[in-house]
Amino acid sequence: MTKIERLQQFFSPSHVAVVGASAKTHWFHNVLDYAGRTGFQGRFYPVNPGAAEVCGIPAVPSIANLPKGIIDFAAVIVRSAIVPDTVRALAAHGIKNVLLVSSGFSEVQGDGERLQAELVALCRELDVMLMGPNCLGFLNVADRAAVFAGGSIEGTLIPGDVGIIGQSGASSEVIATRVLKKGLGISLFVSSGNEAVISFEDCLEHMVLHGRTRVAIGFIEGFRDVARLAKIAREAARRGVPIAVIKVGRSDKGVQAARSHTGALAGDDAVTDAFLRQHGIIRADTIEELVETAGILSRCPLPSGGRLAVCTLSGGLAGLYADLCGSLGIDLPDFSTKTMADLTDALPPFARPGNPLDVTGSGFAQGMDRVLRILMEDENTDIVATLSFPPDAVSDSIATGHNDYILSSLPGTHKPVVLLAFREVGEYARTWYREKGLYFVEHTRDGFKAIANLVGYAKFRRRIAGS
Amino acid sequence: MTKIERLQQFFSPSHVAVVGASAKTHWFHNVLDYAGRTGFQGRFYPVNPGAAEVCGIPAVPSIANLPKGIIDFAAVIVRSAIVPDTVRALAAHGIKNVLLVSSGFSEVQGDGERLQAELVALCRELDVMLMGPNCLGFLNVADRAAVFAGGSIEGTLIPGDVGIIGQSGASSEVIATRVLKKGLGISLFVSSGNEAVISFEDCLEHMVLHGRTRVAIGFIEGFRDVARLAKIAREAARRGVPIAVIKVGRSDKGVQAARSHTGALAGDDAVTDAFLRQHGIIRADTIEELVETAGILSRCPLPSGGRLAVCTLSGGLAGLYADLCGSLGIDLPDFSTKTMADLTDALPPFARPGNPLDVTGSGFAQGMDRVLRILMEDENTDIVATLSFPPDAVSDSIATGHNDYILSSLPGTHKPVVLLAFREVGEYARTWYREKGLYFVEHTRDGFKAIANLVGYAKFRRRIAGS
Repeated sequence: MTKIERLQQFFSPSHVAVVGASAKTHWFHNVLDYAGRTGFQGRFYPVNPGAAEVCGIPAVPSIANLPKGIIDFAAVIVRSAIVPDTVRALAAHGIKNVLLVSSGFSEVQGDGERLQAELVALCRELDVMLMGPNCLGFLNVADRAAVFAGGSIEGTLIPGDVGIIGQSGASSEVIATRVLKKGLGISLFVSSGNEAVISFEDCLEHMVLHGRTRVAIGFIEGFRDVARLAKIAREAARRGVPIAVIKVGRSDKGVQAARSHTGALAGDDAVTDAFLRQHGIIRADTIEELVETAGILSRCPLPSGGRLAVCTLSGGLAGLYADLCGSLGIDLPDFSTKTMADLTDALPPFARPGNPLDVTGSGFAQGMDRVLRILMEDENTDIVATLSFPPDAVSDSIATGHNDYILSSLPGTHKPVVLLAFREVGEYARTWYREKGLYFVEHTRDGFKAIANLVGYAKFRRRIAGS
Repeated sequence: MTKIERLQQFFSPSHVAVVGASAKTHWFHNVLDYAGRTGFQGRFYPVNPGAAEVCGIPAVPSIANLPKGIIDFAAVIVRSAIVPDTVRALAAHGIKNVLLVSSGFSEVQGDGERLQAELVALCRELDVMLMGPNCLGFLNVADRAAVFAGGSIEGTLIPGDVGIIGQSGASSEVIATRVLKKGLGISLFVSSGNEAVISFEDCLEHMVLHGRTRVAIGFIEGFRDVARLAKIAREAARRGVPIAVIKVGRSDKGVQAARSHTGALAGDDAVTDAFLRQHGIIRADTIEELVETAGILSRCPLPSGGRLAVCTLSGGLAGLYADLCGSLGIDLPDFSTKTMADLTDALPPFARPGNPLDVTGSGFAQGMDRVLRILMEDENTDIVATLSFPPDAVSDSIATGHNDYILSSLPGTHKPVVLLAFREVGEYARTWYREKGLYFVEHTRDGFKAIANLVGYAKFRRRIAGS
């Protein structure tokens, strides 16, 4: 079996031993909590020499006491010094898929580095697939399986098509929470930690080949195998799976932080930048931009070009959006002569057509469907961004009426349509937008940056297709 | 009486006539709604030739029928052509403070521009203080008075120290809503529109002199009187009232949008930029950044310098923050030798001291107060930014425990302390932070940009003081 075939198995365990499970720390409690929230049907077997049960589940005193043949996965939460013996005992018991939560390895110079080297050799010798050390595990939301020791991913775990890989546990939990809050679903979430055996590249390849992930995003401190990453990126481009990452290490202080965190070598940032650009991997600067980028890539078709039409109800916002697009290199072309004539006809007399378009306060009361259809048909533009009122409730008639105009104007267009939320997007609206498959922007700069990333990715794909 | 003394009166009306009040449009309904929400105790007198009452309030058919001597303010919502006659009739009736909501003036070239010139001459002739046209009015939240025809400011109107002036109505409503959602209070909110008589500069001067506004922010399409603005900025610097604005017109498209919106001339952007910098007026690029900047200026003391200490519980976030600070020009100095030794002593053995500091996941369970005190006492830094768990409820023990550490470490420091919210900030947390007078960052980039703005403003103030 190849490593990638092994990984498929790894992310779909049947039953799970948890070595070092204890009610005194939050790790085992978290594992149970996320397994329940993900809908995992497997059983957990705590191993603890000093407890008959942990969190209400019967425990065994040692690995040798575990039942034979039914457990195919182990989570290990013991101090680093006894990890090698633990891995040996697990392998001897036939358990070769291991999640190592414990820290104290390559992120600690000297002893820790030596211990991690020993661990890598041991896993190779015993044919053990190991995730970590210094990691939180995974949530296979799409397939309802989870061995995850983190505690900060909030909200309902919505299955979906965004795959997330993070070398940094806490940061990745923040990303996953924001993805869910954005109304997006998750295919697979992985906190990969020090990547002694299973690397970022392995998880990314798995996502690209796995079929459930439409967009793969990552929080990266250092790449392990650049040649392999390039190969995976080519396959991803061929299959139409965009990849977007935050890559720490733009600054000297950032490089230092990465080194002392997961022991990753961040490398020369200009080289990294060029490499990512060449391979069509989008680089985001903040978690918020990364999540908006995942949203637009997950929900929108690829545009034929980069020319954006913007529709607002505020002259002030029209000016602000124009400036923002200017600073982000987004092209706001003039509308065609036909569009200008049609808009003059459709808009109130005191509104002046132009891009960005200010339909004025009266515009949303009537005729917005016609205005939007005119914009969608304009030959000078490839993407339409329009204001939208996030509904508060079913009975929110202004928002519903306005959004009905948007929905009724969508059929017949192949252009990406981005909704600019005019007010805060609450739970009801998140669900509403998700169910309609719409992409909405709450934070202006992140949203327009995500549009720029979509445009850049579409251009990359056209270049690949043409070469 | 000077224009500024008149303005003080203008923003504190006793009773208000509403000419053109009708239940068929939302304007009068909005005026009543916001007056109620602000706690205005004055009465409204709708003027409508065809209705005995509007929205349940008895109406009079014409201005001549209004009671004499008790009404000192009028809101005018009639078509532009009859505005001059309406203003004449109001002045004849002794009402010389007028809010003109109607549009159709200088934002419409030709006829509209002529009509506005006529209106300006008329107001001068009759000694009428006029706000607008093409505006929404004001909310004097601090003094509980409001004549405001807008409809999009959401949430409880919290009285406070942030003053907001917007030439663009809808954009300013978005700003006000975000200010309130951030847990900040508002002194005065003004939508000034075309500024035929009362200008941005007038409102700004009023805020600077008025005493209730600690930070004045604006959404500006064009300045009316640059020399006067410079004078006001000097007075604001002397009194310690920072000013922050979004000034549309960075791009050609932005200039076009501003021109067709309120008829403002956006001017040469490089000149604008230099002017604002010279006068210590902060320029924000997005509404989100503007609001974060208002927050930090309203809640934090001015730092003695620009050196930032950052404390997180995640190595990944430490790297990300380092990169972000690098890109925003924020100085993250090395800690002093004493601080490094003290941190080594205070932190778990596997944590490595450094700036940004990663206390590791275990750090927040114990000893955070000591860590924070060490950072606050470090001689190499002027500002401290530390992670914080926004509490969900009184019973949220992790968040409460952690934030108690922060609160207990605050006394004795004169440095600004910024909280980096580790998860979404809900209603409970907003109130909690507001009551504690704390400044929290939810969106990383905006938050660090706001810190950069605070540092820049403090530097400006030191320069002024030294010259």
